[in-house]
Amino acid sequence: MRSFTRELWFEVPRRMDFVHITREVQDCVQESGVQEGLCLVNAMHITASVFINDNEGGLHEDYKEWLERLAPHDPSRYRHNRTGEDNGDAHHKRQVMGREVTVAITEGQLHLGTWERIFYGEFDGRRKKRVLVKIIGE
Amino acid sequence: MRSFTRELWFEVPRRMDFVHITREVQDCVQESGVQEGLCLVNAMHITASVFINDNEGGLHEDYKEWLERLAPHDPSRYRHNRTGEDNGDAHHKRQVMGREVTVAITEGQLHLGTWERIFYGEFDGRRKKRVLVKIIGE
Amino acid sequence: MRSFTRELWFEVPRRMDFVHITREVQDCVQESGVQEGLCLVNAMHITASVFINDNEGGLHEDYKEWLERLAPHDPSRYRHNRTGEDNGDAHHKRQVMGREVTVAITEGQLHLGTWERIFYGEFDGRRKKRVLVKIIGE
Repeated sequence: MRSFTRELWFEVPRRMDFVHITREVQDCVQESGVQEGLCLVNAMHITASVFINDNEGGLHEDYKEWLERLAPHDPSRYRHNRTGEDNGDAHHKRQVMGREVTVAITEGQLHLGTWERIFYGEFDGRRKKRVLVKIIGE
Repeated sequence: MRSFTRELWFEVPRRMDFVHITREVQDCVQESGVQEGLCLVNAMHITASVFINDNEGGLHEDYKEWLERLAPHDPSRYRHNRTGEDNGDAHHKRQVMGREVTVAITEGQLHLGTWERIFYGEFDGRRKKRVLVKIIGE
Repeated sequence: MRSFTRELWFEVPRRMDFVHITREVQDCVQESGVQEGLCLVNAMHITASVFINDNEGGLHEDYKEWLERLAPHDPSRYRHNRTGEDNGDAHHKRQVMGREVTVAITEGQLHLGTWERIFYGEFDGRRKKRVLVKIIGE
């Protein structure tokens, strides 16, 4: 069994935004030498997501508006913010979009559908945060 | 290490519906010969889900009504639909229900709880779409 | 390849509550002897979740209030409850919070971000329920 571990760093200039990271994950797969296996990609922060969807700007704006409606930023709304934080909303948005994806590796490539793209979802940005790529296989 | 890869095809006649696929996934596990491992099952499309829940028709109708309330079909509501699509809602519904499940394989069987069943969740049907089953283990 | 399987039991005295289980999962990793691999942790019940977020009581109260707003307990609201159940809401809350997490194992430890903690999320408690920990790796 082979394994591969890499932490990717991001600093998103806006509070909420999505970063396309399929290329970075593909590079990890190539470097790992794994031909058949699984590739876990997860946010290492609890106010961020890794998710798979379309690389289409209009959809991303739709997501932001929808997440803002489901869990508004409004800092006074969350008990969590009594700890001195103002990111209670981000902990909620991240649960809707998910923490992680697991992607199959087949014949040395990410086994993705035609339109599947991997994104880092930031909900409390403007600071450095990490994504973990862990690959196991053969 | 053994690995196994299979793409399952579905053509759901309605825009939104759920298809019970536990049997198909079990067949893959059997065919793989894996006794101890992990089985990833994921939608290969970004307007569909794979999820685990109850095989109970009333619940499925509840889910549809709830998802329609959280992300109504209404095509004029989504910027994504300016690209010529009418499935903006489906990209949202899929995020609530999730892209994938990972199921343990123990003693050659899917290690599921008593009521756990695997479903393909379609939110933009009436065309052929794929689910990926990837198994690794020993 | 090594593998490890353990079912953890919980009996949560309230209908909805969250139980911190990072320690129990860490113990499984240690016992497995796996140095590099993946650790799947999933609810074996379809009215419960396993998720990763902050170990902060205010946030947990925020989550409960938010989930209650997204899918109120109100038993008359769900077709599912015509089967004699009163837990239709729990099947919905669990979909928002997710069924499972997959955590990387690196150098014999759960590879978690600074604030990542693993929780069992109960939405239909007051009875014994199970969580599965499955580890594969080397």
